[in-house]
Amino acid sequence: MPAMKTLKTDWRVVLVRPRNPLNIGAAARAMANFGIRDLVVVSPYEPTWQEFRSAVGAVEVVKLARAVPSLIEAIGDATLVIGTTAGRRRNLDRGLIPLPELAAWLKKHESHSRASILFGSEKTGLSNEALSYCHGLVQIPTVADCPSMNLGQAVAVCAYELERAGVLPSNPPRWTVHRSDPARLQSLEHLYERITRVLDEVAFLRPRSRKAMLIKIRRLLLDLGLTNNDARILGAVLAQVEWKLSQKRKEEVSKQNSKVES
Amino acid sequence: MPAMKTLKTDWRVVLVRPRNPLNIGAAARAMANFGIRDLVVVSPYEPTWQEFRSAVGAVEVVKLARAVPSLIEAIGDATLVIGTTAGRRRNLDRGLIPLPELAAWLKKHESHSRASILFGSEKTGLSNEALSYCHGLVQIPTVADCPSMNLGQAVAVCAYELERAGVLPSNPPRWTVHRSDPARLQSLEHLYERITRVLDEVAFLRPRSRKAMLIKIRRLLLDLGLTNNDARILGAVLAQVEWKLSQKRKEEVSKQNSKVES
Repeated sequence: MPAMKTLKTDWRVVLVRPRNPLNIGAAARAMANFGIRDLVVVSPYEPTWQEFRSAVGAVEVVKLARAVPSLIEAIGDATLVIGTTAGRRRNLDRGLIPLPELAAWLKKHESHSRASILFGSEKTGLSNEALSYCHGLVQIPTVADCPSMNLGQAVAVCAYELERAGVLPSNPPRWTVHRSDPARLQSLEHLYERITRVLDEVAFLRPRSRKAMLIKIRRLLLDLGLTNNDARILGAVLAQVEWKLSQKRKEEVSKQNSKVES
Repeated sequence: MPAMKTLKTDWRVVLVRPRNPLNIGAAARAMANFGIRDLVVVSPYEPTWQEFRSAVGAVEVVKLARAVPSLIEAIGDATLVIGTTAGRRRNLDRGLIPLPELAAWLKKHESHSRASILFGSEKTGLSNEALSYCHGLVQIPTVADCPSMNLGQAVAVCAYELERAGVLPSNPPRWTVHRSDPARLQSLEHLYERITRVLDEVAFLRPRSRKAMLIKIRRLLLDLGLTNNDARILGAVLAQVEWKLSQKRKEEVSKQNSKVES
């Protein structure tokens, strides 16, 4: 990899469950226009994916595109995830970044080398589950009476904004080298799974609030800004807690068994 | 018209000879997303236009859209015309405005109340003739190996930039009231036609350089920044010159006739 490349962020566009192959193709074209090459599509409908892949005159982005079954497989190696939303329907518990302010927002996150930007399906946008993986949510400043953009056009506008922000590898470098080693989403997801198991074990999660609480915990993990080393240490701590809890459970089970036997 | 409206520029999107009805529809959708309502299509292929107009679920922009036979009819009432170009093929004799710098450029032209932004056909872009009507040419910062954008996406990106620049009526006003009364394109075109006739009459235009010279003159007229009053005065002066020249021609003709007779 050339030295210049490491000064910039590698951007991936992730389309979550798109319906229309023409829209995937349009997204690929817009990416190619701004020099973004990495396209991942999460669980596309199979005929949609086949039709997209066989597009005549397809740009290189189409040839390199991958389909994966789950969102975490699409963003596991990213250290920064940006979601896109119309931002009008939901009560989102984090602030929206107006797209024109994304450049300034990214300046504060300049240590990231691998970033993903997510786009939801044409009909529903991103789910709350998908949004819970996002460090930031951008909103394209559309008007109130026609807020929902065509998918390919939304990708075009966001790609243009990334270009304008100077964070794409095709641009002359403006940013400095990484100051830290931010944790990959995959490591954070492993931590999250361990935490969930531990909280279930200690009966912290109530059935009624379980889902909302877990989403809060995932966001907390994102917001901590852990490095990969932090994630390793925290993972080891949680593994130890899990081990202790399982020992305790075994003891209790054997105590109860001996009570029953006696 | 509400008082707020006059603080802003009314923007029109002009598509010159688009081929694909889906692209016109996509342009209309992008316009609607950013609150631009005025779409004019110059000499579309008739079936293309019919197909576009009958689009299911068409937004209001589609219903209001007009087709006109010539570019001057599309932009005649504008006082500011922006062209869009990939800017790589031609030797353009005026500087390109990178799209991210359009906001700053427009600040210098804030007295305009009616502006048009032109997009050429999918295959050829805007002709040199069409570019000669433009006060400024913007270039979307695409990469060198895939410079040509999809028409609908190009409109989306430019509409987003106008929104970002704060020049659309949907935005809170940032600009001040008109300081002058800039001339409409139609008035400038009448001046241009008068000048052409006068120059032909005095044999200023040589066949070989005629076309290039006329394009230079049209640009000069744009760059003068004439007000409507200036245009009226200049028009009256030229009308007088034309009349004098025609009198002179008549005299010469009658002199020659009398020579022949004598």
